[in-house]
Amino acid sequence: MRIHHLGIAVGSLEAARPLFEKLLGKPPDSEEVVEEQKVRVAMFQVGESRLELLEATSADSPISRFVAKRGEGVHHVALAVGDLAGTLRKLENDGVRLIDHDPRRGAGGAQVAFVHPASASGVLIELVEEK
Amino acid sequence: MRIHHLGIAVGSLEAARPLFEKLLGKPPDSEEVVEEQKVRVAMFQVGESRLELLEATSADSPISRFVAKRGEGVHHVALAVGDLAGTLRKLENDGVRLIDHDPRRGAGGAQVAFVHPASASGVLIELVEEK
Repeated sequence: MRIHHLGIAVGSLEAARPLFEKLLGKPPDSEEVVEEQKVRVAMFQVGESRLELLEATSADSPISRFVAKRGEGVHHVALAVGDLAGTLRKLENDGVRLIDHDPRRGAGGAQVAFVHPASASGVLIELVEEK
Repeated sequence: MRIHHLGIAVGSLEAARPLFEKLLGKPPDSEEVVEEQKVRVAMFQVGESRLELLEATSADSPISRFVAKRGEGVHHVALAVGDLAGTLRKLENDGVRLIDHDPRRGAGGAQVAFVHPASASGVLIELVEEK
């Protein structure tokens, strides 16, 4: 297992990026708009994981709502899993509260699902099964 | 570079641990009290990184204050760096706001320093140079 990525909600990519460039010693490895999630993403590869800075592209993006309510900061923690559908069934049988009961298509064609933060100490956890 | 660990503030380790055990398919790799930081830590190794669940051992622990103010959730993101003192000098010259201007002794004898969240999109970033 590994940490797939951390999603960090920011008000402005332009404002947020320089600090991470200084810390990580490089520009973002990629930058793209993910239309379905209404976010612009600057991604930094860090070892086997990624830091993803997420800026809302519209006022009804989940990232806009998060920043308005809680301020900038870590929005979600994504873990890579081998068998997402099986993991979801197991968690559900164990009484874990899920946001997604079945895998759905995420960024880059991966299968993803979210665990509800109420079941995970306030942390929004994304499970990712890569192609 | 790599993500060294994520520190997750929880109200109760007993209550928080089961979900992470289910997700990660194992019990914590270690559990200990870090007196100087007034926390009890349950640590799960996840690939090259760790998830650390942090429970306050006293009411004046930074973790108590965080949970009282913001609720449970991700408290800090730790990045492993090669040369901590040099990194701090560079960040300071670049105008980044630091909590620690010099490395100090952290858990396990590592040298650590924190970047102020005001300079890092609301994320409390710990830099760790291991022995």
